[in-house]
Amino acid sequence: MKKITVVGAGRVGESTAQFIASKDLCREIVLIDIREGAAEGAALDIQEDAPLFRFDTRLTGGTDYSLMADSDLIIITAGVPRKPGMSRSDVLETNVRVTDSIIENTLKYAPNSKMLFVSNPVDILTYRAWQKTGWDRSRILGQAGVLDSTRMASFIAMETGYSALDIDAMVLGGHGDSMVPMMRFTTISGIPVSNFMDQKTIDDIVTRTRNGGAEILALRQNSSAFDAPAAAVAAMVDAIVNDRKRILPTVAILKNEYGCDELAIGVPCVLGKNGMEKVITLEMNKEEQLNFDRSVEAVEKDMETLSKL
Amino acid sequence: MKKITVVGAGRVGESTAQFIASKDLCREIVLIDIREGAAEGAALDIQEDAPLFRFDTRLTGGTDYSLMADSDLIIITAGVPRKPGMSRSDVLETNVRVTDSIIENTLKYAPNSKMLFVSNPVDILTYRAWQKTGWDRSRILGQAGVLDSTRMASFIAMETGYSALDIDAMVLGGHGDSMVPMMRFTTISGIPVSNFMDQKTIDDIVTRTRNGGAEILALRQNSSAFDAPAAAVAAMVDAIVNDRKRILPTVAILKNEYGCDELAIGVPCVLGKNGMEKVITLEMNKEEQLNFDRSVEAVEKDMETLSKL
Amino acid sequence: MKKITVVGAGRVGESTAQFIASKDLCREIVLIDIREGAAEGAALDIQEDAPLFRFDTRLTGGTDYSLMADSDLIIITAGVPRKPGMSRSDVLETNVRVTDSIIENTLKYAPNSKMLFVSNPVDILTYRAWQKTGWDRSRILGQAGVLDSTRMASFIAMETGYSALDIDAMVLGGHGDSMVPMMRFTTISGIPVSNFMDQKTIDDIVTRTRNGGAEILALRQNSSAFDAPAAAVAAMVDAIVNDRKRILPTVAILKNEYGCDELAIGVPCVLGKNGMEKVITLEMNKEEQLNFDRSVEAVEKDMETLSKL
Amino acid sequence: MKKITVVGAGRVGESTAQFIASKDLCREIVLIDIREGAAEGAALDIQEDAPLFRFDTRLTGGTDYSLMADSDLIIITAGVPRKPGMSRSDVLETNVRVTDSIIENTLKYAPNSKMLFVSNPVDILTYRAWQKTGWDRSRILGQAGVLDSTRMASFIAMETGYSALDIDAMVLGGHGDSMVPMMRFTTISGIPVSNFMDQKTIDDIVTRTRNGGAEILALRQNSSAFDAPAAAVAAMVDAIVNDRKRILPTVAILKNEYGCDELAIGVPCVLGKNGMEKVITLEMNKEEQLNFDRSVEAVEKDMETLSKL
Repeated sequence: MKKITVVGAGRVGESTAQFIASKDLCREIVLIDIREGAAEGAALDIQEDAPLFRFDTRLTGGTDYSLMADSDLIIITAGVPRKPGMSRSDVLETNVRVTDSIIENTLKYAPNSKMLFVSNPVDILTYRAWQKTGWDRSRILGQAGVLDSTRMASFIAMETGYSALDIDAMVLGGHGDSMVPMMRFTTISGIPVSNFMDQKTIDDIVTRTRNGGAEILALRQNSSAFDAPAAAVAAMVDAIVNDRKRILPTVAILKNEYGCDELAIGVPCVLGKNGMEKVITLEMNKEEQLNFDRSVEAVEKDMETLSKL
Repeated sequence: MKKITVVGAGRVGESTAQFIASKDLCREIVLIDIREGAAEGAALDIQEDAPLFRFDTRLTGGTDYSLMADSDLIIITAGVPRKPGMSRSDVLETNVRVTDSIIENTLKYAPNSKMLFVSNPVDILTYRAWQKTGWDRSRILGQAGVLDSTRMASFIAMETGYSALDIDAMVLGGHGDSMVPMMRFTTISGIPVSNFMDQKTIDDIVTRTRNGGAEILALRQNSSAFDAPAAAVAAMVDAIVNDRKRILPTVAILKNEYGCDELAIGVPCVLGKNGMEKVITLEMNKEEQLNFDRSVEAVEKDMETLSKL
Repeated sequence: MKKITVVGAGRVGESTAQFIASKDLCREIVLIDIREGAAEGAALDIQEDAPLFRFDTRLTGGTDYSLMADSDLIIITAGVPRKPGMSRSDVLETNVRVTDSIIENTLKYAPNSKMLFVSNPVDILTYRAWQKTGWDRSRILGQAGVLDSTRMASFIAMETGYSALDIDAMVLGGHGDSMVPMMRFTTISGIPVSNFMDQKTIDDIVTRTRNGGAEILALRQNSSAFDAPAAAVAAMVDAIVNDRKRILPTVAILKNEYGCDELAIGVPCVLGKNGMEKVITLEMNKEEQLNFDRSVEAVEKDMETLSKL
Repeated sequence: MKKITVVGAGRVGESTAQFIASKDLCREIVLIDIREGAAEGAALDIQEDAPLFRFDTRLTGGTDYSLMADSDLIIITAGVPRKPGMSRSDVLETNVRVTDSIIENTLKYAPNSKMLFVSNPVDILTYRAWQKTGWDRSRILGQAGVLDSTRMASFIAMETGYSALDIDAMVLGGHGDSMVPMMRFTTISGIPVSNFMDQKTIDDIVTRTRNGGAEILALRQNSSAFDAPAAAVAAMVDAIVNDRKRILPTVAILKNEYGCDELAIGVPCVLGKNGMEKVITLEMNKEEQLNFDRSVEAVEKDMETLSKL
């Protein structure tokens, strides 16, 4: 991949750029932020570690959307961050407006790109972009489940003491409160976690994962999480750039899948050079379906809010 | 290496921990910060990307110095950050007090560790720690020149278009304003940069490097640089942890070297498992010596301030 | 970890050393081979790529066992390789004699080390070493299932087109013919492979995996497999060196586990700084148990042969 | 880069494929070898470590040149290896014939590719390919100096005990006997090696480097070097694939550079996405020029032999 634009040079945007650059995933990264100097400063600070981390990605930053010209991928991290006490949906209205402007500029400057949404509510913004661009759904996707999954995997590693390298967790549905943990597909070296811990412990881990963003926010106070979110985005970008055909939980536009149509929500997808290349359908058991339905409801409620904007 | 403590969970401290963890350089990282929740939040956020970056370092954070118990290495990033308009020396007094408390706690909880200073004025704090601990000088070192060098190397890469992988820059002396660029030893694939650019361009790059921290600060406004500083620290930690015997510009206590005695300043040193294992002495030409003398003067002035505290 | 000795500088031994060195997993690697010059040549050739792969491991080689002095880990790849038409057991007698000599030298020169067996029949040699050293079983282990598993995972990646990064395969029991594929624990992103392919395809992949070594041998003709075997060993070494607590299929001495006592066979184990730190017991279904029993029988038959030597 | 073909599945070819795959430098690698099964076996053995080394490059192998269809890069490692007592030039005639066939097939199946020669005599084969294809010189290059340089850097690391990460060595001219060591540009952390060792030691290291291939051959007896040669090729491929603009010693067709015209020899070149993008001209001192002239003479002698074939 040649050029990636990250919109929003806040902590998530900057860490995302840092991780993508240090893995040499593209030749050029542009950071865009409306705050004068912010994107440029972040780009330069990252650029300056190139000799140490041994990468040759060139980074630039600025306030002008024309900088995104001919990007292959636009990563959207801009928008109002969630503050203590706010729900993800509270930020919907503001962030839709921000996103609309980004979408327009993408259509103008990078009409052949893909869009990867990180800002919240990610399901709604992903849907909004699909609706407004008219693009094939493969080109528009969102990050939610990779973060929830890595959090759950971490909690399992911390609880059991086993290596983070061996833990696969799968979390579908909406981000956070309405996430759908798929414990059958959450394994240590392929072995379901139920072999390693009792139901109470699993339940506690699920609850903690659901509350993962809020936990960090409560600790940090002046900032949402950004290390793990940025790492999650970088994993998705790596899958696309290297055409890996990875199966990662992804916010995708569903088309008569999982009982949904024309709605964006987190499901397992194949990520490759074309973006979201395929939705993997899994049969859900009762509990999973219940959780998923609740998640869909939350998204539908947000979509109603959206339709009134 | 088993355990590393990072004191200060600000941006430099957090990024340092992120880089050290993601390279699996030790089994345990502790972040300590006086702000309730800050270190714990940072540690948890980083921990949660372990499954994605595939590391098994365990991170914890807190406010209590007893957490550093039995650390092998203490990295000090705490202290007042430089704000727009402030010189590095302005922050001397406050940071000496902060440092004194860290030194005391290190002597109490991690008496067999090494200390790596990042906070400014780094030369003075490094010296202070040596003075107060009575430790062998090999166990106390500071970061300054690795950052200045990676910045200069980046500027050379940006100017010439050549790969950051091939550029070696060497900057000695004090950090920032009084740094001593060693252009003879600044090379692209071993070839001195003077083969690639005229003196005017070199001079501009030197000036920009000298001003490197201020440039980022002016752009970011609400934060000093942290990506490249953290990467610089990680490079030094890697050299020590892996016993590499790298030659890196390091703030070290000089003992009748470079015409100095019992004074901490940036010179090329061999870094290995014992910390600062050896000072490499280079013959300086007139200009270099002039710069170095000016640097020494600046440090001596700060030491005078220190002696009056 | 400081020092690793690889006994046997054939292709598996050399590739193992190359992979361990290029990941900087220890400070010193010694290669030992009875063929004059072979180990020294391999060590030097690998050493010469250190500047390119950026590692600082020092490699030496020779014919003299005293070179292994104070090693932390001894990897045994020496012995007669399997030639076309030979079963793994055919090579038992010769390789036991070779191993006995290595064990004696280990007891003499590296009495505090761990031993990792790669030579075949690996179950028997692992058992032999445990028997002759009297060491705790944690310090003696063998490689078999990591190779079988990576092969099966590769075949699944090739069949489905999905990323090798997302596939976890688990193969227990004896190496090769008598291996025990655990398809329930063989997953793509945590989802059992049965969700992705029909039984016929799975059966074919199992058969191909069983035959994995022979397939390579038939193609290469003048050499057994070495790339994947060496990668498998490197993964186990990484788990031990970095104290990861990974769960990897490992040839371990069983003690009233899986219905076996004082017998070495491949089961899932936790690998960490102490070597084989724990046997993970899994309940087997009928088919798995049948396969496992057959595997145990094969090992028991070899052990009978062993007892007559 | 999408597809790379490696012609010759001997040890250099196989290790090259292993290194390129494990760094995920392209999506597809094809190995071609006239020996039935050899390339297929090597490709499969490497493919089987994908889950462990976490790459998604797909490898195939065969005897048929049509497999190279639409490759972006052809790496030529085929030909008669140098045996004990043979000079590189001895193998000229045989390898020109082998190369001619590869060139023809490249023109037929991969007419838009680049060619990277590893087989010896590399200068002559590189020239031959340029002559026969009529391609722009940027698309045809050879490996020689990266290997000589990494060897010399290794010897310096071994002699001084300093980190291989900090040593830059530069060797130009012909491969082996007639190589041109550029000690002025051979540095430790940018500092010329003459600061670290006396002339006698430097001379010994130069002699050992000149003799580097023969030293390995004498030790191994049944094989030339392959680890470091393959690593050298991988470094060049990485520079091209990632469009790094690295300055690496490269066998390039000179056009009125270094006093030569239409002759292939090792000089510092910029490697990027277009292959050999630029020759870097250095002023040589007397001794360097003398060595270079001798090197040119050796190449010219081989070119005479070539013209008579």
